[in-house]
Amino acid sequence: MKAIKVDYSGDSAQMSWGNVPYPHPTADGQVLIRVKAAGVNRPDILQRDRQYAPPADATSILGLEVAGIVEQVFGESRWRPGDEVCALTHGGGYAEYVWVDHRHCLPKPEGWSFVEAASLPETYFTVWFNVFMQGELGRNSKETLLVHAGASGIGVAAIQIAKALGHRVIITARKENQLKVCQDIGADAAILLDEEWTKQVQSLRGSVDVILDMLGESTLLGNIKVLGKAGRLVWIAFLTGTKVVLPIPHIMEKQIRLTGSFLRPQSFDVKANIASGLLEHVWPKISQGKIKPIIEKTFSIQDVHQAHAWLEKGGHVGKIVLTL
Amino acid sequence: MKAIKVDYSGDSAQMSWGNVPYPHPTADGQVLIRVKAAGVNRPDILQRDRQYAPPADATSILGLEVAGIVEQVFGESRWRPGDEVCALTHGGGYAEYVWVDHRHCLPKPEGWSFVEAASLPETYFTVWFNVFMQGELGRNSKETLLVHAGASGIGVAAIQIAKALGHRVIITARKENQLKVCQDIGADAAILLDEEWTKQVQSLRGSVDVILDMLGESTLLGNIKVLGKAGRLVWIAFLTGTKVVLPIPHIMEKQIRLTGSFLRPQSFDVKANIASGLLEHVWPKISQGKIKPIIEKTFSIQDVHQAHAWLEKGGHVGKIVLTL
Repeated sequence: MKAIKVDYSGDSAQMSWGNVPYPHPTADGQVLIRVKAAGVNRPDILQRDRQYAPPADATSILGLEVAGIVEQVFGESRWRPGDEVCALTHGGGYAEYVWVDHRHCLPKPEGWSFVEAASLPETYFTVWFNVFMQGELGRNSKETLLVHAGASGIGVAAIQIAKALGHRVIITARKENQLKVCQDIGADAAILLDEEWTKQVQSLRGSVDVILDMLGESTLLGNIKVLGKAGRLVWIAFLTGTKVVLPIPHIMEKQIRLTGSFLRPQSFDVKANIASGLLEHVWPKISQGKIKPIIEKTFSIQDVHQAHAWLEKGGHVGKIVLTL
Repeated sequence: MKAIKVDYSGDSAQMSWGNVPYPHPTADGQVLIRVKAAGVNRPDILQRDRQYAPPADATSILGLEVAGIVEQVFGESRWRPGDEVCALTHGGGYAEYVWVDHRHCLPKPEGWSFVEAASLPETYFTVWFNVFMQGELGRNSKETLLVHAGASGIGVAAIQIAKALGHRVIITARKENQLKVCQDIGADAAILLDEEWTKQVQSLRGSVDVILDMLGESTLLGNIKVLGKAGRLVWIAFLTGTKVVLPIPHIMEKQIRLTGSFLRPQSFDVKANIASGLLEHVWPKISQGKIKPIIEKTFSIQDVHQAHAWLEKGGHVGKIVLTL
């Protein structure tokens, strides 16, 4: 079959669409998906540049999410050949075919294209796991979520899911046009991430219940300031570093909970649990038209280098998707 | 009635047993306890020295826990005059009488003296709230708890409760005799808190599930090292400071959860929940003889200055209790 191959012989990694061995299932309960579209994510770029090594049991082919058609079923499965699905992969999405744990597939939403469906898994699994499972947004009925970098793929997914489930969402971003986009998607408030951001949050809501943070150092003290009693801070990245002293007394005073996770190293069982949560709580909202796909741009998979460059330049809103 | 009065006119706070106005209930559902014994706690000393101000709605009389006999009942109550109870107070325990929320009283354990019963509330409420409610020890059946300063009042209570409920307990302490005492009480392992302590924990158990920490700075990085997947670190104090940079990547890798709390500012409802948890899970273990009182020393309440001095010199094991 064909897949994106990475050539490391030059100064920088070169990607090309070429022949690779046909893949085989590695465990019972996997399905072979004929890929129609594959989402592009930041970890793909890190892996391309050898700044991130995939898990030992994973293929070295890039690509963490796809949409396509079930072609074969190996062992027990809830899917049949011909089913249209989107899926979180264990790598290998930038290819004509990929084997995926059948529990990590979700039905392609009705009326959505493969491109649109391929934009969902990585960000939706990440948001469900971190905001709802780790951060327990909604454990006290309706709550307020603060999302930094609200216009990122993760940010957009967080706004969409939290709003569809009836929560309040405040986002921050660094550019005015990003603020507007987030409000168009449904964010109740959008705040410029300048030195006054904590005052803005406090004047809007007093405090927030859960924060999804990918910045780390630059927002830590502000996050602890705006979190309310028993608030939860969840890290999914630390793009600005981690060199900040933790104010333990404030954590105790407000009983704040700090936590975080990486999605990819999670076990297949945990990922299956995430998928179940999405299917039960979020997929019905998609069917009801409460969640719309947000695609920045699509590229043919042969033009993957352009797709990566588009992500690297920043300033995008929503997902970049490769088509096959 | 008589109570401990604090005189601030000299160089240092002077305590004496003298007349104060008879107390009145401040809300429905309180009971008046005739105090037979009152526990001594570190916050008493901070309050005595004006390093800690009690909540605005609390009496300025010292004393966070008592055992005694119910004398009067105001409004709805599960108690009747004559009942023997121990209770977490909202201050005011160093006195002949104190009004307490009836939900914050627990039955004096059968066969226990008032002195022994008075040794329980402050540490048992603290441990139940932090180790079991915040830290969720036992949410995955039997787990391993690490307690720093295992020979402290809190440490001893944590060992007793966690062991009575079937968990593994590792403690640290700074002195050899403290290690021995903790093992006598039931700790599965006791480790000297030197530079090698994390290696000791790892060689014993690999990792731990929950850590109860009152040290803060000096143990933070070690705590994160020895916590296992989805481990919980709960701060109840930060005696060595807080000036340490948080390793966010390790928190994400292991999905560690950091949290903490102060007991005293909790609402009356939260304290009532804590008492319910203790009554349901811990009091039966006391009745079964699985938990024994551990009293360092008793003093007549008139000798309260000696009791405080005993606590301040350190090195004690178990509670210091005042008798009336």
